[in-house]
Amino acid sequence: MTERLKVAVLGAAGRMGRTVVEAVESAEDLELVARVDADGDLSAVTDAGAQVAVDFTVPSVTEANVHTLVDAGVHVVVGTTGWDDAALGRVRDHLVHAPAVGVLVAPNFALGAVLTMAFAAQAARWFESVEVVELHHPDKVDAPSGTARHTAAGIAAARAAAGVGPSPDATSQQIEGARGADVDGVRVHAVRLRGLVAHEEVLLGNPGEMLTIRHDSFDRISFMPGVLLGVRQVARHPGLTVGLEHLLDLGGRR
Amino acid sequence: MTERLKVAVLGAAGRMGRTVVEAVESAEDLELVARVDADGDLSAVTDAGAQVAVDFTVPSVTEANVHTLVDAGVHVVVGTTGWDDAALGRVRDHLVHAPAVGVLVAPNFALGAVLTMAFAAQAARWFESVEVVELHHPDKVDAPSGTARHTAAGIAAARAAAGVGPSPDATSQQIEGARGADVDGVRVHAVRLRGLVAHEEVLLGNPGEMLTIRHDSFDRISFMPGVLLGVRQVARHPGLTVGLEHLLDLGGRR
Amino acid sequence: MTERLKVAVLGAAGRMGRTVVEAVESAEDLELVARVDADGDLSAVTDAGAQVAVDFTVPSVTEANVHTLVDAGVHVVVGTTGWDDAALGRVRDHLVHAPAVGVLVAPNFALGAVLTMAFAAQAARWFESVEVVELHHPDKVDAPSGTARHTAAGIAAARAAAGVGPSPDATSQQIEGARGADVDGVRVHAVRLRGLVAHEEVLLGNPGEMLTIRHDSFDRISFMPGVLLGVRQVARHPGLTVGLEHLLDLGGRR
Amino acid sequence: MTERLKVAVLGAAGRMGRTVVEAVESAEDLELVARVDADGDLSAVTDAGAQVAVDFTVPSVTEANVHTLVDAGVHVVVGTTGWDDAALGRVRDHLVHAPAVGVLVAPNFALGAVLTMAFAAQAARWFESVEVVELHHPDKVDAPSGTARHTAAGIAAARAAAGVGPSPDATSQQIEGARGADVDGVRVHAVRLRGLVAHEEVLLGNPGEMLTIRHDSFDRISFMPGVLLGVRQVARHPGLTVGLEHLLDLGGRR
Repeated sequence: MTERLKVAVLGAAGRMGRTVVEAVESAEDLELVARVDADGDLSAVTDAGAQVAVDFTVPSVTEANVHTLVDAGVHVVVGTTGWDDAALGRVRDHLVHAPAVGVLVAPNFALGAVLTMAFAAQAARWFESVEVVELHHPDKVDAPSGTARHTAAGIAAARAAAGVGPSPDATSQQIEGARGADVDGVRVHAVRLRGLVAHEEVLLGNPGEMLTIRHDSFDRISFMPGVLLGVRQVARHPGLTVGLEHLLDLGGRR
Repeated sequence: MTERLKVAVLGAAGRMGRTVVEAVESAEDLELVARVDADGDLSAVTDAGAQVAVDFTVPSVTEANVHTLVDAGVHVVVGTTGWDDAALGRVRDHLVHAPAVGVLVAPNFALGAVLTMAFAAQAARWFESVEVVELHHPDKVDAPSGTARHTAAGIAAARAAAGVGPSPDATSQQIEGARGADVDGVRVHAVRLRGLVAHEEVLLGNPGEMLTIRHDSFDRISFMPGVLLGVRQVARHPGLTVGLEHLLDLGGRR
Repeated sequence: MTERLKVAVLGAAGRMGRTVVEAVESAEDLELVARVDADGDLSAVTDAGAQVAVDFTVPSVTEANVHTLVDAGVHVVVGTTGWDDAALGRVRDHLVHAPAVGVLVAPNFALGAVLTMAFAAQAARWFESVEVVELHHPDKVDAPSGTARHTAAGIAAARAAAGVGPSPDATSQQIEGARGADVDGVRVHAVRLRGLVAHEEVLLGNPGEMLTIRHDSFDRISFMPGVLLGVRQVARHPGLTVGLEHLLDLGGRR
Repeated sequence: MTERLKVAVLGAAGRMGRTVVEAVESAEDLELVARVDADGDLSAVTDAGAQVAVDFTVPSVTEANVHTLVDAGVHVVVGTTGWDDAALGRVRDHLVHAPAVGVLVAPNFALGAVLTMAFAAQAARWFESVEVVELHHPDKVDAPSGTARHTAAGIAAARAAAGVGPSPDATSQQIEGARGADVDGVRVHAVRLRGLVAHEEVLLGNPGEMLTIRHDSFDRISFMPGVLLGVRQVARHPGLTVGLEHLLDLGGRR
């Protein structure tokens, strides 16, 4: 019988942490060996012999957690927000001295959202036009969503790299706002509707055809397949990996 | 055997007129008895014994055509643009003296577009949120489209009549334009994409559910079922009718 | 200040009943005056002076509840399943002797689902082609869903009443099942997908255009606006009303 | 100034050939130097100094054309149908002796359709459920479409290679056909609707989320960007390439 992978969850009492605990306990190939609160003692992780730790704590402690775990030879999957380039650089440097350890920092664990961004970037250079529509519940304070801005930026970068110009647009009479927000030259429209959760649609057009890539997120549980994928694969990716897409065998230009 | 309805087409050499000529010729229950150019002589219509005339001419002659045809006892279906309230009022007054004659003036003959507007107005009061997305080819100069503005105005009027307040929206940080144009308090988003023709989507949201009504127009031919419907029904609707929706048995408040 | 409407909930401990209790308590114009279990004593309803009772009990007691409440002069909104034509007939007969009392029996309280069915039936006669696609979670045992079968039957009846023939279909080579189920001559396709709840799409096609009416149900909470609508309106509709659509001012042929 | 690429079109009088001729003439970086009928003499191609030839002829002559052009050192883009593994093998063998020449044989030049198939195959292993819905005009005789069957087969192969089991499905009561056709274990639904051209939707579901990849083809013109891409790139891909996806920098496992 295959040995089960030993997993610790940090921030286990939080909203995401509790969902991760349940997901690990439900997975036949994983064994939950430690659950630690956001402000708890990490010695429980190593005492329990954890091979992988999942960090859904808070921005103020997540980087220190990662350094401690790397020293202990524990692979880490990080879902906590608040990482900037400087913090990522310090982890990358640290990992030079622990070449067998893998750390995955992912801003988004929903496989569908990650694939939407990756496919949009791959497809964007082959179409004359591209726009993004995102749809969320009406209690959201920012528009467009961070995911949509990130998607549009990825599309713009891919088009620029391939030498593709802006999408055509003959609009000369406009009611203000009709053509959406301009994110790096890509038009992004934000719909707010009671009943919705988080949805994104990338529309690509050529003469005579349209390609649509759409992601619907109905529930926080949608992050779990991505978290478990990270847990299972992080040991095979030593060093620092930023973004779940690099574990999805999507190939293409990186 | 049933007698076929005798039909004349005015503006028969124009783009729409030619399509109407073909559609009438293809319909088993209709007989094309006269085709007249936009600047042609209407005596051909009465000489041929036409019972119904379809007017796709030009704004400068369409009203005069209608008055002439009403005097001749010919029912009229008008697709020419440029009608204002004053012109409609003159036809209404004229028809008092020709109580058996029917005149249908319709700004849009695409059944799907007409039904989308009618259904959106009927549904709007029952939902907390409603927004409109329209999508067109990138050579269009105005945004949002006239159809989308008309749809939004109908939604706004229906909600006002039912005492329903504005759609909820907590947006406080926005990249300019993200939340679309404001048409009578209804948000309208305009997408421009190569490959598209004319498309409109009305999104309505309540806690836990969404209703979507969408119309895709791929080709000018989509107006023909509505034109033929007008031709077949106009005689049964004496007086002036403005808008194809009144021939569709949709009921509701008018 | 306006008097609040006094409401009782029967089956208050059940899954739906609890959600109704919360919804009534959250509505400013309603006052929850009694909550009774599915097997509880209805005298609590009249003792508390309830004007409207909502019944989400069980098939074995719901009809007896209605007769008791009608005798007590209490309006009733029924969401319990299991009503057949005979039971409805008995309530209709009973109401002859209580002409001021209204009873609403509704198989579906999701406004979006009810409107989808109503709009599909209204539109069906004006299009050459119509098909239904329903999408649900993969634990559902029946295909197509009851709602989709009901929608298709309504479409078929509307087309038959208008003398519209079957949708065109030149299929001569088919992998078994590709063209879906035949429900009264209307094709219905059932998709089963992890992550979904309950979704339905009616597709209508004419030359050059398509009309789509889609309902997405994400959560049981979606029934509440319809239940509250019933509570607020049932007193204004004396006699028996079957189906929420009759309270929605949709007009049309009934 | 950059030299324009010299292009010949074979089958130039056919429906597709004429569209290719127009597309080449409209492209600033391409020069149309020869147009040959399906049964015409290929010496015109070499006499005109063509660097690339596009073959939209007929199954009976296309293979002979390719061998002749390879001998003449002309790169070839083939859109003609009817190629089997034996014919492809003979071209591959021939190209061993002309190592600088590139031949591209593509069953589908619509970029959106090719990308839909590629993305569906890449995503399929990461989702618990996947189904395909295709929608076409009602004059189509086969169901599901060849493209949908090809898409489903690619999905099935990708899931098998990754060790992913079948999509869950608890259906136990079914109206015959409701759950669609079974193509290699993937459910495929075929909708037929007046007004449509050719459309395909791949639906992928995980707990709490759905990913949708949809391609709408409105017009034959949608093949042209793919044909021109082939023309511009074929010289950089010596040897035989089967499928436009290999020119799209999609990476991944091939």
